[in-house]
Amino acid sequence: MNKKAIVLFSGGLDSTTILYYAKDKGFEPYCLIFDYGQRHRKEINLAKTIAKQAGCDFKVVKISLPWLGSSLLDKSMDIPMGGAIDEKKIPSTYVPARNIIFLSFAASYAEAVGARAIFIGANAIDYSGYPDCRPEFFEAYQQTLKTGLKTGVEHKAIKIHIPLIHKTKAQIIKMGLKLNVPYDLTWSCYRGGKHPCGKCDSCVLRLRGFEQVGTKDPTL
Amino acid sequence: MNKKAIVLFSGGLDSTTILYYAKDKGFEPYCLIFDYGQRHRKEINLAKTIAKQAGCDFKVVKISLPWLGSSLLDKSMDIPMGGAIDEKKIPSTYVPARNIIFLSFAASYAEAVGARAIFIGANAIDYSGYPDCRPEFFEAYQQTLKTGLKTGVEHKAIKIHIPLIHKTKAQIIKMGLKLNVPYDLTWSCYRGGKHPCGKCDSCVLRLRGFEQVGTKDPTL
Repeated sequence: MNKKAIVLFSGGLDSTTILYYAKDKGFEPYCLIFDYGQRHRKEINLAKTIAKQAGCDFKVVKISLPWLGSSLLDKSMDIPMGGAIDEKKIPSTYVPARNIIFLSFAASYAEAVGARAIFIGANAIDYSGYPDCRPEFFEAYQQTLKTGLKTGVEHKAIKIHIPLIHKTKAQIIKMGLKLNVPYDLTWSCYRGGKHPCGKCDSCVLRLRGFEQVGTKDPTL
Repeated sequence: MNKKAIVLFSGGLDSTTILYYAKDKGFEPYCLIFDYGQRHRKEINLAKTIAKQAGCDFKVVKISLPWLGSSLLDKSMDIPMGGAIDEKKIPSTYVPARNIIFLSFAASYAEAVGARAIFIGANAIDYSGYPDCRPEFFEAYQQTLKTGLKTGVEHKAIKIHIPLIHKTKAQIIKMGLKLNVPYDLTWSCYRGGKHPCGKCDSCVLRLRGFEQVGTKDPTL
């Protein structure tokens, strides 16, 4: 049976957990890493290191958006500091259509290598309020792949797997620790510093998760 | 009222007609041109020329897919010759997820400039059998934009306009001639030669269209 799977891979906590989860379920992961001008470019090299260490094939896709509109791309904007995460308000780190773009490349890669699965570490519980991390978005995208791809028309539709969607950050970390995920190599901080800032939304969510599990974040 | 619109623009017959159509309907078009390693790279410069001549803003997005899987990208593959277009079979010029990728960038661009409309010259009558040119695909994508974008969540969803979807090539050309579309500048041939080959699927569809209208294709 074809077990090739594209894993949308940032080298962060969630996607690294997903990579190890997919391997554990017997999939053969192909990591797809994006260089899209993110401030935290550091994650790109870490992602490559983790993919190699996990023995997985990987590709880096470079995208340069000739427009901005996000504090994650635009250095003149401030990165919001966590603690006051408002789940009803979309933060400035929102990158317009990011997961729509990422999944579109994953779909193309999947058809090119003959994979029937795409894994994405999206999470709608301890998350930053991005609309493209919610279950209804992935349902709609699944239908887009079914209708817009050759494989969909040929009734071999590519399935989007979102195993973390309803998990808390603590549950994700617990799951990852059992799978021996190398959390010491993962990078979550939105700011591209030498060490995680511990204060941005992404750091705060991560810290809380490790606290709730009762373990220390190995990157600190 | 906000009339900004992103136009997915290749410089071909259909998308140039769409550009003039959108202008005629009072929209303010922002052309989005893709440099994705297509053999017929010639269309990129022509697209820029047409956009400038129409007085429209444009952006070129460069995408390099580190995988192939299409005769439109892979020079070692043959371009299928027209005349025997089989509408039940997807041809080798199919680029996996092309419109899924193009629309994802259009959505991002739209949010960045505050446009509420995306125009795409897709056509499901005189077409090459690509699944991502059919109405059911655009319906699914519309739902993806509604659920995955900030503007969708804020009830100002971006609308995908597909005015050519049910038109024959001849009807499109008739419409374009009324709108003074500069068809002499448009490029449709899949092969990157000096002149259109007149034989590939794309040339054959175009030629038939002009014949049915009873006019000569100005590029010949």
